[in-house]
Amino acid sequence: MALPAPQSYSPESFRPLTFHDAVPAFLTGDDTPRAYLERCLATIADVEPQVMAFAHLNEAGAREAADASTARHRVGVPLSPIDGMPVGIKDLIETRDMPTEMGSAFYKGNRPGRDSALVQALRAAGAVIVGKTVTTELGMSHPGPTRHPFDLRRTPGGSSSGSGAVISARMLPVAIGTQVLGSVIRPASFNANWALKPTQGALNRGERQGFSQSTVGIHAGCAEDMWAVAVEIAKRVGGDPGAPGLYFTGETPPPAFKPRRLAVLETEGWPLAEPGAVAAFEKALEALREQGVAIIRRGDHPLLEALEQRVMGAMGLATDVCAYESAWSVANMMAKNPDALSESLKARFELGCSVTLPQYRMRLLQREEMRRAQAALAGEVDGFIGLPACGPAPLPGDTGGSTNRILHTTGNPIMNTASSGLGCPVVTVPRMAVGGMPLGIAITTQPHQDERATAIARWIADAVPPIML
Amino acid sequence: MALPAPQSYSPESFRPLTFHDAVPAFLTGDDTPRAYLERCLATIADVEPQVMAFAHLNEAGAREAADASTARHRVGVPLSPIDGMPVGIKDLIETRDMPTEMGSAFYKGNRPGRDSALVQALRAAGAVIVGKTVTTELGMSHPGPTRHPFDLRRTPGGSSSGSGAVISARMLPVAIGTQVLGSVIRPASFNANWALKPTQGALNRGERQGFSQSTVGIHAGCAEDMWAVAVEIAKRVGGDPGAPGLYFTGETPPPAFKPRRLAVLETEGWPLAEPGAVAAFEKALEALREQGVAIIRRGDHPLLEALEQRVMGAMGLATDVCAYESAWSVANMMAKNPDALSESLKARFELGCSVTLPQYRMRLLQREEMRRAQAALAGEVDGFIGLPACGPAPLPGDTGGSTNRILHTTGNPIMNTASSGLGCPVVTVPRMAVGGMPLGIAITTQPHQDERATAIARWIADAVPPIML
Repeated sequence: MALPAPQSYSPESFRPLTFHDAVPAFLTGDDTPRAYLERCLATIADVEPQVMAFAHLNEAGAREAADASTARHRVGVPLSPIDGMPVGIKDLIETRDMPTEMGSAFYKGNRPGRDSALVQALRAAGAVIVGKTVTTELGMSHPGPTRHPFDLRRTPGGSSSGSGAVISARMLPVAIGTQVLGSVIRPASFNANWALKPTQGALNRGERQGFSQSTVGIHAGCAEDMWAVAVEIAKRVGGDPGAPGLYFTGETPPPAFKPRRLAVLETEGWPLAEPGAVAAFEKALEALREQGVAIIRRGDHPLLEALEQRVMGAMGLATDVCAYESAWSVANMMAKNPDALSESLKARFELGCSVTLPQYRMRLLQREEMRRAQAALAGEVDGFIGLPACGPAPLPGDTGGSTNRILHTTGNPIMNTASSGLGCPVVTVPRMAVGGMPLGIAITTQPHQDERATAIARWIADAVPPIML
Repeated sequence: MALPAPQSYSPESFRPLTFHDAVPAFLTGDDTPRAYLERCLATIADVEPQVMAFAHLNEAGAREAADASTARHRVGVPLSPIDGMPVGIKDLIETRDMPTEMGSAFYKGNRPGRDSALVQALRAAGAVIVGKTVTTELGMSHPGPTRHPFDLRRTPGGSSSGSGAVISARMLPVAIGTQVLGSVIRPASFNANWALKPTQGALNRGERQGFSQSTVGIHAGCAEDMWAVAVEIAKRVGGDPGAPGLYFTGETPPPAFKPRRLAVLETEGWPLAEPGAVAAFEKALEALREQGVAIIRRGDHPLLEALEQRVMGAMGLATDVCAYESAWSVANMMAKNPDALSESLKARFELGCSVTLPQYRMRLLQREEMRRAQAALAGEVDGFIGLPACGPAPLPGDTGGSTNRILHTTGNPIMNTASSGLGCPVVTVPRMAVGGMPLGIAITTQPHQDERATAIARWIADAVPPIML
């Protein structure tokens, strides 16, 4: 079958699905959550055969939930601002009504029969769980079938491949992803999503907490929906055990906030950034300067230079940390059914077995030093700005210059490993196109300042004109 | 059936099983791990019908593992100092060869088919996994069937009921428990165990990390076996994700360390301590003073007084924290099969639903304040000494003066809630008897000083004469 010709993305004209602006018509009766869902399902029927973003769909269950939401809106008592919102759930996360196969042959047919914490929260808020979105194998390297909606030859990114793609394909307004290295922010950038990778532990991951760096993340078509979903989860199930959960000062999304000073956070990914991506990013910085935002870079401030130096090697750090932390779990899979594991997972397992406890402790110390260096800048800058990926979604075989021991088949996460290690919030906002493919701008703040990151990103969405190179 | 008459416990004459001193004979061939196991199995056959400490036994698997260990010892190449050691595993922890029913009708027949991190580590070290030991329902309040080996009318404590009882019944030299409020140290005290509740996160809990205060713990007949098991786990699978794991400076257990100064940590449990327990404890303090150890109490030092004030209410804190953290998980069980849950679990669930995110955050702040107050004493005292329980194992219906909203049916954990909240190590050492039943002495140190707590406890075992009241 011949692939359809790639579509050229424009940040000016692309209109993803949004939900918050549909709610008024639900309350007047001019529209209904069921009708909204049917529009999503029609798009899914149309494009899913090409994009393959879903591991499972539950159309009957979604229609039932949408009808219940329609009835609540009819009498004017929705459960929350996201009542009726169709949502996709990354297939690492458990749902009571669908399998949880985690992109792994090992978990074929796995039916835990329960809702993870955040899925419970979403249902309690009235959201409509439409399906499970494709993940790479266990959220690691081995890719799933999903293809990029704008160019089917390209990867949509990973590991939250399906969650990124359902937004750019206009199948859903919101999807849940997870990130350990760069699994939310990278696919979000590739797919012109708004996305929040919250402060470490700020949204309850349920019991799958095998990685000290993993977080839940929100992919959305707009800032309003992204933030509302995060708040509705945090209100109901909080964060991880022992974490204070997402901080939010009100029910509504934070208004745009103009920063006085931003620091560019280049990270170890900078030398691998593609020339087009760098050029687009520099144009964005120029637009910010024109608006009166002071921009500082590593040479301008000794504390920023110290942070940049500390986050060098964040990829190697995360690779060792994750390999060590998952080794015992993969050992169980190896003992039971090694044929169900990819070669890349086996390589990661071997690496995990080679990391010693003293080496792991050294990695934790390095991570703590990174975090201290970021904290030292709390009073110096309102936030950090950077590239969320080395460039647009790559073509097959292009690993974006990855020199990591583990091959990254869904694009290189190296632009995200610093913020993942820092455990701080990141919001990516879609404002740029390079060669007709999307590229985001990443805003990072201090831990627990998820609201500020969102507010700065909203201001940038208004202040930075669309950039197309 | 008439119950056998209670046996009177004497700390002088009671000889629990020990393993480390059996190893030399394994290497000379005068004894074998298989023969050691057979002696354990004979005792189990004899007393288990009365004590009911096991949820499941795998005698065939244990014999196979013991034979393999025997073969390794025959050629002089044991895998570790605990190669051949028969171990019981609390039935909250997954094992690939037995069900994991967690003391809950909900999990009847649950077979996860995999080894939790620590079970993997134990097997890799050559330990012989004999069976799953009884836990209260999901490690919470509702009791299992286990009875106290010295007095079958009494509770063996909980939630690690079976792990405590297999030691006092001389069925096994070591068993693994878990603690959130007081589930290792309390049953260990009741059953004349040595036990280590390590620093929060120091031993890998696997993926069941629903509670921010839960830890794995080691029940044993002696300090040597207790410490060796902790080290062999930490060496192979470390601690929880993001935690540095148990610190140990060598392969052998730490030698006895005489403290210069100890602080009595009374905690909020002190007013509920039974007169006999207090009298025995004061005799122990007197013996320490006679050996030249300075003992300070809350009135003697403003920082100690501050710590005592901060740990007041640790029970209410832990109850709220745990109820909040487990609410989403119990909600799944309620949705699926509420009839399989005890009334006490349902009450805890209702409590969990009533705790709000701001209230939870306030509890985390209080817990952090407790920890800061303990840290402030790091240079002032070598450690803390206290009672590990309000008294010996209670008779049925005696809840030890519990005024908590949740009824404690296996004895009151109130003497342990401070150290559980502090996240610091505790070692209990069996040196006392009150009314013919065992009572331990609890040694607490700063976080990560598990080795020091063990070393001080070893010195106390030598320096404090057996106390019988």
